[in-house]
Amino acid sequence: MKAVRLHAYDQWPSVDEVADPEITGPFDVIVRIGGAGVCRTDLHIWEGQWAPKTGIELPYTIGHENAGWVDQIGSAVTNVAVGDAVILHPLITCGLCRACRDGNDMHCDVGAFPGVDTDGGWAEYLKTSARSCVPLPDGVEPADVAAHADAGLTAYHAVKKALPDLYPGTTAVIIGAGGLGHIGIQSLRAMSATTIVVVDRSKDALELAADLGADQTVVADGSHVDTVREMTDGAGAEAVIDFVGEGGSLDEGFAMTRRDGNHYVIGYGGTLNAPAIDLISTERSFIGNLVGTYNDLVELMTLAGQGSVTLHTRTYPLEDAVDAMHDLHEGRMRGRGILVP
Amino acid sequence: MKAVRLHAYDQWPSVDEVADPEITGPFDVIVRIGGAGVCRTDLHIWEGQWAPKTGIELPYTIGHENAGWVDQIGSAVTNVAVGDAVILHPLITCGLCRACRDGNDMHCDVGAFPGVDTDGGWAEYLKTSARSCVPLPDGVEPADVAAHADAGLTAYHAVKKALPDLYPGTTAVIIGAGGLGHIGIQSLRAMSATTIVVVDRSKDALELAADLGADQTVVADGSHVDTVREMTDGAGAEAVIDFVGEGGSLDEGFAMTRRDGNHYVIGYGGTLNAPAIDLISTERSFIGNLVGTYNDLVELMTLAGQGSVTLHTRTYPLEDAVDAMHDLHEGRMRGRGILVP
Amino acid sequence: MKAVRLHAYDQWPSVDEVADPEITGPFDVIVRIGGAGVCRTDLHIWEGQWAPKTGIELPYTIGHENAGWVDQIGSAVTNVAVGDAVILHPLITCGLCRACRDGNDMHCDVGAFPGVDTDGGWAEYLKTSARSCVPLPDGVEPADVAAHADAGLTAYHAVKKALPDLYPGTTAVIIGAGGLGHIGIQSLRAMSATTIVVVDRSKDALELAADLGADQTVVADGSHVDTVREMTDGAGAEAVIDFVGEGGSLDEGFAMTRRDGNHYVIGYGGTLNAPAIDLISTERSFIGNLVGTYNDLVELMTLAGQGSVTLHTRTYPLEDAVDAMHDLHEGRMRGRGILVP
Amino acid sequence: MKAVRLHAYDQWPSVDEVADPEITGPFDVIVRIGGAGVCRTDLHIWEGQWAPKTGIELPYTIGHENAGWVDQIGSAVTNVAVGDAVILHPLITCGLCRACRDGNDMHCDVGAFPGVDTDGGWAEYLKTSARSCVPLPDGVEPADVAAHADAGLTAYHAVKKALPDLYPGTTAVIIGAGGLGHIGIQSLRAMSATTIVVVDRSKDALELAADLGADQTVVADGSHVDTVREMTDGAGAEAVIDFVGEGGSLDEGFAMTRRDGNHYVIGYGGTLNAPAIDLISTERSFIGNLVGTYNDLVELMTLAGQGSVTLHTRTYPLEDAVDAMHDLHEGRMRGRGILVP
Repeated sequence: MKAVRLHAYDQWPSVDEVADPEITGPFDVIVRIGGAGVCRTDLHIWEGQWAPKTGIELPYTIGHENAGWVDQIGSAVTNVAVGDAVILHPLITCGLCRACRDGNDMHCDVGAFPGVDTDGGWAEYLKTSARSCVPLPDGVEPADVAAHADAGLTAYHAVKKALPDLYPGTTAVIIGAGGLGHIGIQSLRAMSATTIVVVDRSKDALELAADLGADQTVVADGSHVDTVREMTDGAGAEAVIDFVGEGGSLDEGFAMTRRDGNHYVIGYGGTLNAPAIDLISTERSFIGNLVGTYNDLVELMTLAGQGSVTLHTRTYPLEDAVDAMHDLHEGRMRGRGILVP
Repeated sequence: MKAVRLHAYDQWPSVDEVADPEITGPFDVIVRIGGAGVCRTDLHIWEGQWAPKTGIELPYTIGHENAGWVDQIGSAVTNVAVGDAVILHPLITCGLCRACRDGNDMHCDVGAFPGVDTDGGWAEYLKTSARSCVPLPDGVEPADVAAHADAGLTAYHAVKKALPDLYPGTTAVIIGAGGLGHIGIQSLRAMSATTIVVVDRSKDALELAADLGADQTVVADGSHVDTVREMTDGAGAEAVIDFVGEGGSLDEGFAMTRRDGNHYVIGYGGTLNAPAIDLISTERSFIGNLVGTYNDLVELMTLAGQGSVTLHTRTYPLEDAVDAMHDLHEGRMRGRGILVP
Repeated sequence: MKAVRLHAYDQWPSVDEVADPEITGPFDVIVRIGGAGVCRTDLHIWEGQWAPKTGIELPYTIGHENAGWVDQIGSAVTNVAVGDAVILHPLITCGLCRACRDGNDMHCDVGAFPGVDTDGGWAEYLKTSARSCVPLPDGVEPADVAAHADAGLTAYHAVKKALPDLYPGTTAVIIGAGGLGHIGIQSLRAMSATTIVVVDRSKDALELAADLGADQTVVADGSHVDTVREMTDGAGAEAVIDFVGEGGSLDEGFAMTRRDGNHYVIGYGGTLNAPAIDLISTERSFIGNLVGTYNDLVELMTLAGQGSVTLHTRTYPLEDAVDAMHDLHEGRMRGRGILVP
Repeated sequence: MKAVRLHAYDQWPSVDEVADPEITGPFDVIVRIGGAGVCRTDLHIWEGQWAPKTGIELPYTIGHENAGWVDQIGSAVTNVAVGDAVILHPLITCGLCRACRDGNDMHCDVGAFPGVDTDGGWAEYLKTSARSCVPLPDGVEPADVAAHADAGLTAYHAVKKALPDLYPGTTAVIIGAGGLGHIGIQSLRAMSATTIVVVDRSKDALELAADLGADQTVVADGSHVDTVREMTDGAGAEAVIDFVGEGGSLDEGFAMTRRDGNHYVIGYGGTLNAPAIDLISTERSFIGNLVGTYNDLVELMTLAGQGSVTLHTRTYPLEDAVDAMHDLHEGRMRGRGILVP
């Protein structure tokens, strides 16, 4: 089959012919890819930013946002059948460790992360496990939702962590109305009556944010911290959900966070640089966030099926994966890029 | 009356004669001080570290850990009577803002913090409000518990935030077995079956920690991060409760924190310096902590009354306040210093 | 002033001339009533159902859903000023007991409940306390929201307790789309993406429910338990929010509740009659609910100010209070009755 | 192999020779039984009380509290090896449904309950699944902990649900200091500083309760409701954990429950009979409880390994199963009966 393989960091991947994956265990599932998302993390991987975390040997197939149709199943698989449309939880998990037994799939002791630390889905077929398959609601096409497998799931998970604090009368600031942010806005709108303030550098992104349910939009033009503080009577927001995580957003987001509030870190690239006294004098926290649980992804698919969360996507043939990476890298991509084999 | 007043930052305070406080509002309470704690925060105040946060004009009376006997009450006070032994919640709160109505006393919109941003308790008398008075259990003396008003309350509050994650089989690391830490250890022991690991530079402090219920003690000798990781099968601790917050503890504590775990920041002086990718690749968080609620202090007094939490104290006459500050500053103080007017 | 006074159980109250209330304490507030709700609890009081719980001596003024304008304030009141439009939390609370300090206003150790165990608001003026006053958002009129003071607050509080279980893909059944239920539906719609199923005997009520955001409506015609179970693939609903509490709803609601689900009891009159084995073999619970907190009422007023929760009301002059009671008792009242002095 | 089989309700089971279980699926595990608990539920099963819930066809092998050594494993089992000492979670679960993915093993959509609705462990061997095996800490013998598989797990799970409300200063009432209750007492003692009050008819049981950490014991002699209310200043207990559930305990336990408190129903046999007004006027709840999660059982084994929770047991040869049932039925059993093949 064809697969997009990374051979060296900082060099563009190539479309290679590789062997098809095969069923080897009773819980294996092979999925024919219907759509695979192109994500900023793919650029970070290409740059080598994840290399010290994963230690994966090159070459390998990238692509961690995958959806498609079940093509083959192992002997003990009961939850999906050949032909089912599925989106894949980004991790292959054991189901037996403490984290898996608590539903915290992303903290599986032995979890594999296709596209990050094992072969991923920028290919015609992907081998995963029964535990990773989320059946799609009727009428939902794999290519339309593939980006939810990581981008959507991550946004949804962070929003769900913030929800208990976001009662009516509170403010949630979303920094970054891009691939993840626009799903975060819709998820928050569907599940809360909080006032949603969206901060972004791009006026286009802010227009989209307003259409998707933002109550207020703020251009990130240098005065945005002050603007948000004024909107909140000088107090700041109960939750700042930071989909950027670099270029000042970590400092700015924390400065927009109210006493007893939380800055949720989702985007990355930057470094926290806060004096401890600033955390303790106001009881503010930095909350790390990592993709989400299997059940989170099921819930997000429910919202997608209900039409409450929609994705803006642009498709590329699998062969044009590097073009898609260029478009993302150089800021030319509107909505989420989806590779279709 | 006599009061210990700070006239200039970085200069030792003096014992001055000042006017006695007077009842002016219906909810005022004047307390005759029975004991007032000497805390590292008093040194930080003296150094001017809090000046930009509080903006208080000098001179003023420091001392934010206060207990004593009710001496006078305003016309509408119903919860305490003259002569009652009380410990004082460190904040004077309004009772009407959202935070007060949620029990989050330390986030009162208009709270005053005697000893920090208004006259405190290193004096013969202190003016506070009915809302700040916690009656002491029978047999508990003000001078014996005064340090709980801030140090104990802060330790207890942080422990209580961590408790939901500390089921049997988990590990909690306490960094710093000093004034706050030794209360944290006892509180955690009384309310959980987690494995308590205590890290400190001082072997004396670690011996005390073991007596108070620590399961393991680790000398902070440079290899302690590795030691703690080995104790936890390489995974780290579900909760790191950092009573130091400077001199490497922020980095080291985070390095000891397990995936999906929390580093509770209580001590301060240092600066967080963590790449965002380290938070998001493991879903670890930095949790700020600020004193505690009124109800937290009531609960802590229950533990004190039951004998589950005891304080190691050393008393000084009020006149010797500066000696006490010297002893604390130069590392000569064992247990908590208490000024007794 | 004029006040509607109950002189004997099971006899209609009369409109009497009584002395105006007076400020006697520093936190007292006297409110000129702008609207006072007529609630089924007023009928229960009139029937004597609450007599053994409250022990109040007759005669007294009923009316526990009150809103209006601040007319006089005690010397220490800071949170409202004369002329402010306010809705009143139904309880007068101490602010000092454990429950008040936790924000659990309805469990105040010494709380008074105007209209239930002390003089209420079917009158020209009501004496309450600063702690009970919730300022109204701009443009919100007391008579339009008075019914939120108890009916709305109770519905909102129960919904908020249920929310953590109502993730996308779950079902919430609301039994009874009347005075409380129609606020419950709107609150749930504003704060969740759960599937809302409303059960009522009245087709008119169900039409209103659908307009207010119900996803499904079910006529309570005897087959409704089966219908709801079928809608949920035989499993039942994660939450059943029972605003009726009599005439079979307690048994039926429990039968509609899914394993590990909760039946929230808000309406009353009936008796629970469930074998313990039915609770333990499925881990279902019966959750009691009592009005709500002060902060709940603030949040509900936010929703009202945003237009997310609207009330259907019918006003009566204060003098026609007994007519209003008749209309409610005999099922002629559409929406909520509001007395306007 | 030998197995104790129930052939008809209300007739004593017999020890039969039956075929050994065999591995048929990749996740199957066959355990050589080291100990199997004799539980009141076995009497309820024998009486037919569970027949309408389970619909199982007779004859079958009872015994739902099982521990032993792994004897054979399926081809895909990775978490245990032949020879490992294990205790078995009482349910065989799918690992794929929403409940399993949330860690709520006892609510598995397709869970089997050996000894209740499929062949159980009063036998030489039991067939279960990899997901049910909890490895025992070093030095813990299967026969010593077998009763934790259901009795202990159920007590632990209920205690853990109650814990968040049981801060220092609260009271927890445990009704019934028998097989489950004495584990509940120890679990609560290990994980909280609440005041534990134990109510039982038997003075022997109360003596044991005091040894295990109860702060107060109360003979259930008719005046016990009043006694408990007096101990709590007339208010009642924040949590009542009812291991009896019949013979008046449901009414009495609810009468001992404080406003805003919970009555946890674990024992069964009786029927709830509470007017809805009693729930809503005080916001008290009845909470159903069903065994516990896999992780609960792991945590309980940690407490057992630490020596914090010990079981009082009496062993019987497998052949004497009916003698053990008689002893339990007629009140002659002290501690928990354990069958050893």
